[in-house]
Amino acid sequence: MLIDSTYPKSFASDNHAGVHPAVLEAMTAANHGDAPAYGDDPWTAVFERQIKDTFGTGAEGFAVLNGAGANMVGLALMLGRYDAIICADTAHIATHETGATERLLGVKLVTVPTEGGKLRPHDITGRLSALGSHHESQPRVVSISQVTELGTCYSPDEIAALAETAHNSGLLLHVDGARLANAAAYLSCDLSTITTDVGVDVFSFGGTKNGALAAEAVVVLDSSLTHAVPFLRRQSLQLSSKMRFISAQLSALLTDDLWRRNAGHANHMADRLAAGLTGVPGVTITYPVQSNAVFATLPAEAAAALQERYLFHQWDEAAGIVRWMTAFDTTPEHIDDFLTDIRKALSS
Amino acid sequence: MLIDSTYPKSFASDNHAGVHPAVLEAMTAANHGDAPAYGDDPWTAVFERQIKDTFGTGAEGFAVLNGAGANMVGLALMLGRYDAIICADTAHIATHETGATERLLGVKLVTVPTEGGKLRPHDITGRLSALGSHHESQPRVVSISQVTELGTCYSPDEIAALAETAHNSGLLLHVDGARLANAAAYLSCDLSTITTDVGVDVFSFGGTKNGALAAEAVVVLDSSLTHAVPFLRRQSLQLSSKMRFISAQLSALLTDDLWRRNAGHANHMADRLAAGLTGVPGVTITYPVQSNAVFATLPAEAAAALQERYLFHQWDEAAGIVRWMTAFDTTPEHIDDFLTDIRKALSS
Amino acid sequence: MLIDSTYPKSFASDNHAGVHPAVLEAMTAANHGDAPAYGDDPWTAVFERQIKDTFGTGAEGFAVLNGAGANMVGLALMLGRYDAIICADTAHIATHETGATERLLGVKLVTVPTEGGKLRPHDITGRLSALGSHHESQPRVVSISQVTELGTCYSPDEIAALAETAHNSGLLLHVDGARLANAAAYLSCDLSTITTDVGVDVFSFGGTKNGALAAEAVVVLDSSLTHAVPFLRRQSLQLSSKMRFISAQLSALLTDDLWRRNAGHANHMADRLAAGLTGVPGVTITYPVQSNAVFATLPAEAAAALQERYLFHQWDEAAGIVRWMTAFDTTPEHIDDFLTDIRKALSS
Amino acid sequence: MLIDSTYPKSFASDNHAGVHPAVLEAMTAANHGDAPAYGDDPWTAVFERQIKDTFGTGAEGFAVLNGAGANMVGLALMLGRYDAIICADTAHIATHETGATERLLGVKLVTVPTEGGKLRPHDITGRLSALGSHHESQPRVVSISQVTELGTCYSPDEIAALAETAHNSGLLLHVDGARLANAAAYLSCDLSTITTDVGVDVFSFGGTKNGALAAEAVVVLDSSLTHAVPFLRRQSLQLSSKMRFISAQLSALLTDDLWRRNAGHANHMADRLAAGLTGVPGVTITYPVQSNAVFATLPAEAAAALQERYLFHQWDEAAGIVRWMTAFDTTPEHIDDFLTDIRKALSS
Repeated sequence: MLIDSTYPKSFASDNHAGVHPAVLEAMTAANHGDAPAYGDDPWTAVFERQIKDTFGTGAEGFAVLNGAGANMVGLALMLGRYDAIICADTAHIATHETGATERLLGVKLVTVPTEGGKLRPHDITGRLSALGSHHESQPRVVSISQVTELGTCYSPDEIAALAETAHNSGLLLHVDGARLANAAAYLSCDLSTITTDVGVDVFSFGGTKNGALAAEAVVVLDSSLTHAVPFLRRQSLQLSSKMRFISAQLSALLTDDLWRRNAGHANHMADRLAAGLTGVPGVTITYPVQSNAVFATLPAEAAAALQERYLFHQWDEAAGIVRWMTAFDTTPEHIDDFLTDIRKALSS
Repeated sequence: MLIDSTYPKSFASDNHAGVHPAVLEAMTAANHGDAPAYGDDPWTAVFERQIKDTFGTGAEGFAVLNGAGANMVGLALMLGRYDAIICADTAHIATHETGATERLLGVKLVTVPTEGGKLRPHDITGRLSALGSHHESQPRVVSISQVTELGTCYSPDEIAALAETAHNSGLLLHVDGARLANAAAYLSCDLSTITTDVGVDVFSFGGTKNGALAAEAVVVLDSSLTHAVPFLRRQSLQLSSKMRFISAQLSALLTDDLWRRNAGHANHMADRLAAGLTGVPGVTITYPVQSNAVFATLPAEAAAALQERYLFHQWDEAAGIVRWMTAFDTTPEHIDDFLTDIRKALSS
Repeated sequence: MLIDSTYPKSFASDNHAGVHPAVLEAMTAANHGDAPAYGDDPWTAVFERQIKDTFGTGAEGFAVLNGAGANMVGLALMLGRYDAIICADTAHIATHETGATERLLGVKLVTVPTEGGKLRPHDITGRLSALGSHHESQPRVVSISQVTELGTCYSPDEIAALAETAHNSGLLLHVDGARLANAAAYLSCDLSTITTDVGVDVFSFGGTKNGALAAEAVVVLDSSLTHAVPFLRRQSLQLSSKMRFISAQLSALLTDDLWRRNAGHANHMADRLAAGLTGVPGVTITYPVQSNAVFATLPAEAAAALQERYLFHQWDEAAGIVRWMTAFDTTPEHIDDFLTDIRKALSS
Repeated sequence: MLIDSTYPKSFASDNHAGVHPAVLEAMTAANHGDAPAYGDDPWTAVFERQIKDTFGTGAEGFAVLNGAGANMVGLALMLGRYDAIICADTAHIATHETGATERLLGVKLVTVPTEGGKLRPHDITGRLSALGSHHESQPRVVSISQVTELGTCYSPDEIAALAETAHNSGLLLHVDGARLANAAAYLSCDLSTITTDVGVDVFSFGGTKNGALAAEAVVVLDSSLTHAVPFLRRQSLQLSSKMRFISAQLSALLTDDLWRRNAGHANHMADRLAAGLTGVPGVTITYPVQSNAVFATLPAEAAAALQERYLFHQWDEAAGIVRWMTAFDTTPEHIDDFLTDIRKALSS
């Protein structure tokens, strides 16, 4: 059967990319004989050890199937029946998970308008007046996205300040790390520098946008919370029976820092795109380019002309903002061709 | 890094097996360039057409990530806030999904003791007295497993009778088809013969236990219910971003009836095992062998001796019942070696 | 046993007031012999007829126990698993029901900043971009409060415009009518003028703040939704076994327009308070006084001095806004004494 | 308006009775001036002190609105997201609360067939095999009904044995005490003898079936659980704004042991009914009469004839079992007239 898959390079999302060859190879290598199901296999043991190597011996990693699943399992650990999450109003959990937080967790999202998608300590302190009032949901978790949904990154100090503020009021800090690799690559730091070392309690470490097929990790740094993970993962439909193939993906990314090479490359491609736009009349970069995303304003006609040939999202149609994402497999040629077409679209 | 994966052939579960080569090949072939995420790709289009080819033009297929996910999405379509599901007390949704039915759907399971895991029409009619009483959950769905959790199969007539009974009282019929392929192989019938043709409303078609890596389909035959699936699939954490790799797995199984060859082979291996046990003193087959499972009673010491070398489940420790499962990759030699060891264990 | 109940007149809430004598009398009169439980009694039949007399023959009324319960039962009728409610960010369901909407209904609240607590049609149309996207909760209900949480009232035309806007996009209109009586009294109109006649689908009619002990009605104007109410009311813990005593309360309020006399009196007392504040230096009325609430800004020291003697809420401590509520039993003397003390507090 | 309320004395339920005069009097007395809402009033303070006087200083009482509400609030305290409740298959929470346990709490009910409605320690130990398996809901609470739904009572020793068994495996013991008063009256013991003294962790103390209008208490004996009650009560729609009138009801029942007089009288009326049936041909008492319920088998025609004149429930139509309940206001004459009519119905 023939499938026509001659799509142009997509700038719509890093999940339009395929699977990194080393990841697929690791999956193929895992297809060897039988293995116990649900995680009691040697590939999962290796993955679990790599998580400890990466995030410290107090870290426990649990492989799941997608980013929303990683968020729901991680958040469920920390939230009781009348709790609330403080997050940016752009947070993925608040905007693009079809209300899973509300339906699966049953908790309230207290969403905060932000600049550049980043929460600040005063955003937390300014939303704690409900604490103790039995008429109101109780703030219990602060959830940030690293990289944010606007492509920006928190510095280690910024995360540490949020953790301290949260902990001072009895709240916990969660990180949606669907693109945690891109953040560490941008910041030129270890993954632990923006998690373990700065007071994060629970976070996700995304694989899928970084070259995996479908694999994310929930990482728990607060040992009092680990006991519940297997139950919540199973109940939340995030446990794979043939787990070795999920673990093998994450393992491949954690081997020889493949995660950093993939993320770093994608970031560089976004930098190249941003650099190429400098001085081009009609286009303005909207947010600092700190990962593999470039947000820009563009005349509507130019955007429309480009979309005839390229896949990308109109981020904010009213404001004329578009989002261009790069991936581990975006090439300099892709970028340069795209830049040429952007210039053409703007000049006509 | 070295991984010791020299496990003996497992009889614990068909999900201890790996991935069928044709499935892995299809996934590898799908790793070609970019593709839109979340199902808007050509591999998914092929899968969707194959579902219609297999189950009729009124059928709509939706790929998901695991069996519990397929059940929860399929059931969510049919159930309101105060509804109940009538099912066998051995049903997977009632026993092995960590209460996902209760937590994710919020509905009651009305569980029925059965012989051989199969519901009968009078099991439905005998549990409808709650209808109309606002103090009681309202039966709305009858859910059966085909193959059942005890390895038995419903005949097409038996399913038709359940569907008629359910529909006569305004209930819908759901089938947990994690091993639907094994049933069709055992019954030597089309997949549609035990679904579309006999009044089933919504069912799952399992891939994972039949040689896939992680892929199941929710199939909806009642067109009034299809609109909700994408929303419920996304919210239930069952939507894969790189969907082409999920669709490709199901597609491979649906191509040239690979599903039937895999399931038929596994069934034959179970038959070979059962046949080899005939007349062996100390072992008794518990349920009719109608799929890839053999349930048997065995002295506790013999079972223990076997478990030193083989993986399999004590199904009912009190009753001394064990479960032995075969898979697409179980060989006659595996069976014959196992039979030899069973006889040895029983004779010592 | 002696209980010291010599509280000063409270301006904190209309639920600090007791029960109107006619309501208590009706409850006492209902305490006569046996009656079937759960609503199958003659008092409930009378209440149900009164609802039809008041809101039209298409209206069905269901008595419940409190305002949050009335909201949850009414909203549950209209909302599926992946739906969202558009409401003002001051809405009681969003701020003061401990996240019941999220936990009991599992749906998302899309909260809108407003002036004076009132939604406008463009607030609806501006929040419909999620419709059809399976990554986002689907707006399904617009919920407004009449009287709003800021004491303001929607005119019939304003509600009609909201209903039309909602219906045009397939959404339904819900009214939290905890103080519906105060709105009708303020607008000098029938209760049906701001509900049945202007396209409302489901609303609550509050009794407790209007002189009842604990009684609210869920009123359903969309006949396709009535079937579910008894089940959802029971499941939501809002069904009273000795229902006659709940129905009798609502019945008393609906007899000879007691609801209007109670609400009208409370409104007049708020008017008297507002009028008495005119020209008093240091105090400014914050929102139009259109019911039984007066919001005002006041120097913090004056507010603190007053709170030593009077119960009332600091509505917005940062902004220095206080809320003063009147009730059916507030007297002109209460108001005049309070005014004297306000002036005193302000002048010292 | 005329209401025809000349019903015959009902034997259908103790909630067909009205309100005890002393309760109504206490409510009327509480209707005096203003009082802070939501429990910060002197009547509630008295109620809270009475709970401590009755159940010990470690007991904390929280007034709620109905029995299902008391169960849901009490159980919510103890149950996480993947937990299960072990209870009799006749338990009210399992059969007559419209699936509130599943929808509001999201947990599984593990229902046990019993003799006479009473759980035994081996019913607990026989259902703990799921503990530790992440594929299964985790038993966390044992819930019993005292009086049971079949009118029988647990002795203090029986409860102590259940508590010990539960605690030994890390489970908690909950009692649905909708008719706890009837049990203490039957057992001639203090209320604390069957709760505080025998290891119960959380229970409800029912007022409504004992002469209140609508009032139940959730009583928490495990101090680690009390913090959550106000939040869960509010969120579960069980908090009354004019709380003084709920507290006053419970307070009246707890004053001078009115609860015991009411329950004892109802029990005696059931005894009188049972005694009068002794030796009457055609009627057989089904369960030991240990409270205010008499279950009996009766020919279908006789039952039908009686139901033309009397309200009562067919408990098990197939088995021909009926349930006759007495109340605080059932008189010896009611019983004797009923006995006469039963004999007539049986003889014709």
